[in-house]
Amino acid sequence: MKQANIAVLAGDGIGPEVMQEACKVLDAISTLYSVRFSLQPYLVGGIAIDNTGSALPDATLRGCEHADAILFGSVGGPKWDSLPPEQRPERAALLTLRSHFDLFSNLRPAKIYTGLEHLSPLRSDIAASGVDLVVVRELTSGIYFGEPKGVEGDGEEQFAFDTMRYSKREIRRIAVAAFEAASRRHNKVTSIDKANVLTTSRLWREVTEEVAADYPQVILEHMYIDNATMQVMRNPAQFDVLLCPNLFGDILSDECAMMTGSMGLLPSASMNATGFGLYEPAGGSAPDIAGKGIANPIAQILSAALMLRYSLNMEDAALAIEKAVVSTLASGVLTKELCNSANLHSAALTAQVGDAIVNFL
Amino acid sequence: MKQANIAVLAGDGIGPEVMQEACKVLDAISTLYSVRFSLQPYLVGGIAIDNTGSALPDATLRGCEHADAILFGSVGGPKWDSLPPEQRPERAALLTLRSHFDLFSNLRPAKIYTGLEHLSPLRSDIAASGVDLVVVRELTSGIYFGEPKGVEGDGEEQFAFDTMRYSKREIRRIAVAAFEAASRRHNKVTSIDKANVLTTSRLWREVTEEVAADYPQVILEHMYIDNATMQVMRNPAQFDVLLCPNLFGDILSDECAMMTGSMGLLPSASMNATGFGLYEPAGGSAPDIAGKGIANPIAQILSAALMLRYSLNMEDAALAIEKAVVSTLASGVLTKELCNSANLHSAALTAQVGDAIVNFL
Ligand SMILES: CC(C)[C@H](C(=O)O)[C@@H](O)C(=O)O
Ligand SMILES: CC(C)[C@H](C(=O)O)[C@@H](O)C(=O)O
Repeated sequence: MKQANIAVLAGDGIGPEVMQEACKVLDAISTLYSVRFSLQPYLVGGIAIDNTGSALPDATLRGCEHADAILFGSVGGPKWDSLPPEQRPERAALLTLRSHFDLFSNLRPAKIYTGLEHLSPLRSDIAASGVDLVVVRELTSGIYFGEPKGVEGDGEEQFAFDTMRYSKREIRRIAVAAFEAASRRHNKVTSIDKANVLTTSRLWREVTEEVAADYPQVILEHMYIDNATMQVMRNPAQFDVLLCPNLFGDILSDECAMMTGSMGLLPSASMNATGFGLYEPAGGSAPDIAGKGIANPIAQILSAALMLRYSLNMEDAALAIEKAVVSTLASGVLTKELCNSANLHSAALTAQVGDAIVNFL
Repeated sequence: MKQANIAVLAGDGIGPEVMQEACKVLDAISTLYSVRFSLQPYLVGGIAIDNTGSALPDATLRGCEHADAILFGSVGGPKWDSLPPEQRPERAALLTLRSHFDLFSNLRPAKIYTGLEHLSPLRSDIAASGVDLVVVRELTSGIYFGEPKGVEGDGEEQFAFDTMRYSKREIRRIAVAAFEAASRRHNKVTSIDKANVLTTSRLWREVTEEVAADYPQVILEHMYIDNATMQVMRNPAQFDVLLCPNLFGDILSDECAMMTGSMGLLPSASMNATGFGLYEPAGGSAPDIAGKGIANPIAQILSAALMLRYSLNMEDAALAIEKAVVSTLASGVLTKELCNSANLHSAALTAQVGDAIVNFL
């Protein structure tokens, strides 16, 4: 019997309660697809700070090293917001995991589900135009990790600096990831840069063109980041795969997520070259609704599906979960934030959504 | 009689035709407010490349140096898109003018006019929520101008790099500009950064807090750029003044402009510490509609109003133009792109909009 070791890092806020539903779904998959999941929980984020003094304790990092994949919940909350930035849960846990495991390839799908168009902040005709895209974000280089960075000088001339930096190798591997994704989707890559200003963007364009030559069936288009933030609003259905450097991907993937109006439905995957990956919901820890049993577990469950697809090579099981989610939404089992005034009285709880998905499986 | 020397840089695409209407309005102002405008035309952009080989000829730069302000149209077009980036009209003309005149303070208002809510790509309730904000963007530093930048190394390890850099002095002067703007508006500054990742953003926060201490009546709020792109979509009415470093301001001001759905109505101002400034429409040269007499001249005319306000100390005249624009829009004198199917047949031409504004003056 196939066996997979998953490091389960539930974290803070709604993390634990949505993670419970994802584990429920993995249990069902385990029976249906004869695979044994060893789900090992580890501390991460604010709760790890409270218990061990660090947002990413050594035991957690070791546990992840021995796992086949990391299923991540969410971290952070007001309690830890006054810590210095480098100790705060979001940064200390996420950025360290990304660089430690070289998780350079970040996939963030954003899609507007049929029947949920009213949730989008976009005009109804735009929301109904068939939005289904994926942001492929470079996650371990660029201005996030470039050296040197620091502060120098005194008085009013004191200055701070950061370095945006990309090598051909770093650009090539994420461009390949984007073209691979486009080949399995609608054969279009829109590469985002600021080549009219940045040297890194010019190298980005050059390498992206080289990679494109290996994918003759995929159309490559270049777009400036400022224009891209406009196009996401004006005509998001034009996009298939958005290939982005780290910082622009951070900005654009959040804009795309918000544009769907249903952050609680969006998963993400962060992978390295060996197939190892970290899978987490696009939304945050949502401390305001934590502990009430009303959070939407779908983003966490779809993150588990991406984990099955990309790290565990279980495409069938991943598809089955994605189908069960669509059926659940279509059957009207909706958590509060997805409801309108007409069906708010029958809003489903976190656990009910998890149960419905298991039933559809 | 008061005299003002204006360098008129109409440029490419729709630039010349909308500039003509702005000059018409300045003529009317001249009579009404007893001021003599000397409007000196100079070549800039693609047309300057065609005639002189440079997007910003020496004669143009000298002319601007002797003027009290620059009224700028728009530059660029497909004809010059294949030039190397540093020679292309947008970059060669604009970036050089910004740095030559130290135009560090860029104001980009974005507002949804009553009656034009249907143009916004946002959901109707959001578009009708009272959107009226101004992006204050730092324009002469940050990653646009930071040194070193370049390319080093060979083969796959060849890398490109750019430097994001801010001094306390540079941050302070743009923060002061934002707080001054907020004091004349609704007393709220939202400062945009990525302080959880960037060293420059941490210095940005520190100095912004110091400046805030001098404006007790103004509320200061910090927001990450990724979150800001979401909030602009979800609830743009929450903003009054958005204070942004150069790159984030580029991205966010374009998103805000698009969010209004009427780019042809948005002016901008780029000023230095002496009151000298460059005033230009937020939209581009729109080569697709150039020469047809159908472009909207309002952004150019409102740019002239900002010039009167900020560089020529003529607040009354600026307000009069802004009022005349509101009256013109309210009276239904609308260029094509502002019309819906019901009033498209009576769309106004560029010159008719200019005439209407002059009449209301
Ligand atoms: C928490 C923060 C460092 C992180 C980022 O900027 O990458 C987050 O915004 C994200 O997108 O995962
Ligand atoms: C043309 C380009 C260099 C410029 C910029 O990025 O500043 C433009 O996008 C703008 O916003 O004025």
